[in-house]
Amino acid sequence: MTTTSKRPHSPGNKYRQYTQVKLSDRTWPDQMIEKAPIWCSVDLRDGNQALVTPMSLDQKLEMFQLLVDIGFKQIEVGFPSAADVEFRFLRTLVERDLIPADVTVQVLTQAREHLIRRTFEALEGIPKAILHLYNSTSELQRRVVFRMDRPEIRKLAMDGARLVKDLSSETSTQITLEYSPESFTGTELDFAVDVCEGVMEVWQPTRENRIILNLPATVEMSTPNIYADQIEWFCRNLNGRENAIISIHPHNDRGTGVAAAEFALMAGGDRIEGTLFGNGERTGNVDIVTLAMNMFSQGVDPQLNFSNINHIRSVCERSTDIKVHPRHPYAGELVYTAFSGSHQDAINKGLAYRREHGSELWEVPYLPIDPTDVGRTYESIIRINSQSGKGGVAYILDTEFGYSLPRAMHPEMGTLVQQEADKTGREITPDEILQIFQREYLHQEEPLVFESFRSYPDTEDATGEGVVAELAFSMEGRRYELKGRGNGPIDACKNALKQSGFFEYRIENYHEHSLEEGSESRAIAYIQLRSDSGASYFGAGIDVNINKASVKAIFSALNRAAKGAGVMMV
Amino acid sequence: MTTTSKRPHSPGNKYRQYTQVKLSDRTWPDQMIEKAPIWCSVDLRDGNQALVTPMSLDQKLEMFQLLVDIGFKQIEVGFPSAADVEFRFLRTLVERDLIPADVTVQVLTQAREHLIRRTFEALEGIPKAILHLYNSTSELQRRVVFRMDRPEIRKLAMDGARLVKDLSSETSTQITLEYSPESFTGTELDFAVDVCEGVMEVWQPTRENRIILNLPATVEMSTPNIYADQIEWFCRNLNGRENAIISIHPHNDRGTGVAAAEFALMAGGDRIEGTLFGNGERTGNVDIVTLAMNMFSQGVDPQLNFSNINHIRSVCERSTDIKVHPRHPYAGELVYTAFSGSHQDAINKGLAYRREHGSELWEVPYLPIDPTDVGRTYESIIRINSQSGKGGVAYILDTEFGYSLPRAMHPEMGTLVQQEADKTGREITPDEILQIFQREYLHQEEPLVFESFRSYPDTEDATGEGVVAELAFSMEGRRYELKGRGNGPIDACKNALKQSGFFEYRIENYHEHSLEEGSESRAIAYIQLRSDSGASYFGAGIDVNINKASVKAIFSALNRAAKGAGVMMV
Repeated sequence: MTTTSKRPHSPGNKYRQYTQVKLSDRTWPDQMIEKAPIWCSVDLRDGNQALVTPMSLDQKLEMFQLLVDIGFKQIEVGFPSAADVEFRFLRTLVERDLIPADVTVQVLTQAREHLIRRTFEALEGIPKAILHLYNSTSELQRRVVFRMDRPEIRKLAMDGARLVKDLSSETSTQITLEYSPESFTGTELDFAVDVCEGVMEVWQPTRENRIILNLPATVEMSTPNIYADQIEWFCRNLNGRENAIISIHPHNDRGTGVAAAEFALMAGGDRIEGTLFGNGERTGNVDIVTLAMNMFSQGVDPQLNFSNINHIRSVCERSTDIKVHPRHPYAGELVYTAFSGSHQDAINKGLAYRREHGSELWEVPYLPIDPTDVGRTYESIIRINSQSGKGGVAYILDTEFGYSLPRAMHPEMGTLVQQEADKTGREITPDEILQIFQREYLHQEEPLVFESFRSYPDTEDATGEGVVAELAFSMEGRRYELKGRGNGPIDACKNALKQSGFFEYRIENYHEHSLEEGSESRAIAYIQLRSDSGASYFGAGIDVNINKASVKAIFSALNRAAKGAGVMMV
Repeated sequence: MTTTSKRPHSPGNKYRQYTQVKLSDRTWPDQMIEKAPIWCSVDLRDGNQALVTPMSLDQKLEMFQLLVDIGFKQIEVGFPSAADVEFRFLRTLVERDLIPADVTVQVLTQAREHLIRRTFEALEGIPKAILHLYNSTSELQRRVVFRMDRPEIRKLAMDGARLVKDLSSETSTQITLEYSPESFTGTELDFAVDVCEGVMEVWQPTRENRIILNLPATVEMSTPNIYADQIEWFCRNLNGRENAIISIHPHNDRGTGVAAAEFALMAGGDRIEGTLFGNGERTGNVDIVTLAMNMFSQGVDPQLNFSNINHIRSVCERSTDIKVHPRHPYAGELVYTAFSGSHQDAINKGLAYRREHGSELWEVPYLPIDPTDVGRTYESIIRINSQSGKGGVAYILDTEFGYSLPRAMHPEMGTLVQQEADKTGREITPDEILQIFQREYLHQEEPLVFESFRSYPDTEDATGEGVVAELAFSMEGRRYELKGRGNGPIDACKNALKQSGFFEYRIENYHEHSLEEGSESRAIAYIQLRSDSGASYFGAGIDVNINKASVKAIFSALNRAAKGAGVMMV
């Protein structure tokens, strides 16, 4: 194995930095997101087109219904002029009457005549729709792909808008125009504004009938503050801003699509196009689940319902044949799981604090939201491995099995589980934790074999408070019957043992609670004994009789002491 | 199937907005990242502690070597005082002499005496190390978990630092102190500065021997601009800023960890702690692969080597038992794949432009970086499904099989593949595209069954340029032998066919190229015939003789015409 580090490879002159926007008086960094944007799902278009196996008709119908159920009011259903399957899907929605009255479908088309005409055929019989027209406007695409100059590209867009306007007047469908200067993030800002103003000149939007101007980060090309600057610059410089809905369509090439979308809203955006879990071309579109739940976690109603995230996740996984990552915000399998002991401890304390104070506010360390708000549960939060501490183990015993160990007992029990985890090198399941607890405490039945215990008022005691305890047990084949007096049954039991010479401890800690509801419930007692030398021994016992449970706990502790199971407590 | 949308669920009063930082004169939005930060991998600690099955010793050793090979100079190897396995791993690194001279290992410990002492035991014999001390400082953790006030928490940190200082003086290991006010993002900024200044008061860092102050977004609690504001505020208000390395440790609860890290660097951060592919507690730590490649894509040398991303991915996947998401920036399986026809077309044009202009600069639409820079290839970029267009199909035939179809033929071939994709509802593989091409063009061997062709100089032609063609074929059992004259073999062949009444077309397009290197290589010819009515028929033929290849192409086109396979071209 070599330990010499290799020379990093340099980007050389192959790449260059993005251009900054001249906007020293930007205002977006002082804004906060106070309300939900208009959401538009592009799962059935941008999402679907990027799949190795595109969705079948049935999968598309299921996805459409899911999007409606979540609360999307605008849904891009495809590019019907580009492929027969997309055309047929839209017609199926129409023929089966599956589009709710409060939902508007959106269709994409390039700004080319035969495609626009075909798109109108696909829309026949739909009361209202958003027609999403696009052409690429970036300097690179103009130069390399289209070999057109600025005026030609602007004319292309305007011609497309004009045809849409003409055809709109011949159809009963109420058309809202959405125009995208595709590859906006690579387009000079003044030209982006110029093209959009050209399209507005044709379309003649009003405050009541606004045009949607969609500004895509077709490729994410810079840190997301630059996208925000671009959006703010665009909003400031667009003539007729009040007649336009500014729509945001981020991709995620640099892993900052969510941030870009949030900043773009702070910079003036009104609307978001994205997909569930960020499916889409290459690195995907912006993830609407994360965006919406980010708002939710700040008390802003996202107007989308992700209260059953597991169901939504499973439909998406089936439709896309792509698994949601286990660390995906809000939805991943592992995101409500704390592995570290200190995290588990803090979570327990946070939950307890909230319970004790009857606080509505969610403030629990390491859990940004209450998992139940997305239909996840606390039960599965904590897994125990060799990194886990006392808190996690105690939490499992409490929430999974109803054993509420006294705080002083947590370190010892935590250590026992950790030793097991170290030994096996893997996660310890809740059932295994229970087994360890049972083996170490509840089933400590030798060398002292407990037989019976009874207690009754001490008629010889002048105060009337005295108790007599009678105790029977055996050890190494010999049977013992002891009797003791004290101010309570446990005290009396202790004294009985002391007289016999079996007991040289103080009872340091005593804790008892019922295990099930109702008068016939069993109780569990936890006892900590301490010797003069400072060694500490915990024991636990269960019985329907609370006194007997305590005595069993004492025997458990004595048996552990006899085996040297005690842990020196500082 | 119901089409009534459900009522979105509201966050009510359960959550509240984050607090903004008073910093109207922030400077970070005007900064760009111009150089690599100090990188510290926490894969073996934060990453490992969040795994369902923590890494085995062998996996840790493999991961450590991978991190060294990538170029990390600081590697957090664990929390040796927390678990035996972590202790043993560090000792194994020492005993096997696996730590290169230019790499510093870092160990984490809480600010508690017995843990600090145990940590020093783990470091024995190591020339230099970073000791990473932390305690939680947030308002929530002080109130709910520690039940300590500000001075008590500050004292805890200072006591820890003092013990580290004392023990450092007794060991040969050269200790750099890293202090983390854990849960920094939930800590009041003035208190965070106060605690850190307390630790600096004890440690007495200098410009030459700086302390590392690590400011973790233990939980990501706000949009990432707030984290940047916090970092800028902290840097401005810290006494002795010049004696501290400001370290950034983002998590990803809101999906904006990468953005937070980038902004924090712009805001004054010097150092990043993160993991490969963003493994870590809950939603993970910040992903160093994305951060580094974001820099790379802007021409900034990240000083880390990801030139073989697939190997790195596979080691990580094995170690963590978590798959890298197929849409993970720079590394995912699908991120260099273009599905949409217009994307494929633009990529081809971008690649061609770059070749033609001999340009070093990478500027290809829809491909933020050259895939070969991370050891990925173009070959697998393009897959064909029902969303794909002509460009993609032509690209596959060209790059995979060496058939360079003339541009005019792209739409027809694209349509044929699209029909197949529509029919099957799934991706069409390159081999299937080849089969379609062969079936539709190369194997068009009836109704006209070509038999032979030969051509020779026309001795009767006065110009000396004339050619005679002799052609034999059969149709429906009848054999034809034709002879024609023309100014070249194809012209002569055409005239022979015309005389016989079999041919009523113009040759609109002719294209031919060799298929393999060398003088014995075969050639492929593509021919477009057009009838007077405007119908167009493409054909293709292969032969070692270029004339025969052309004639076969003509027969291919004629046979397609006979079957009505032609497509009306406008």
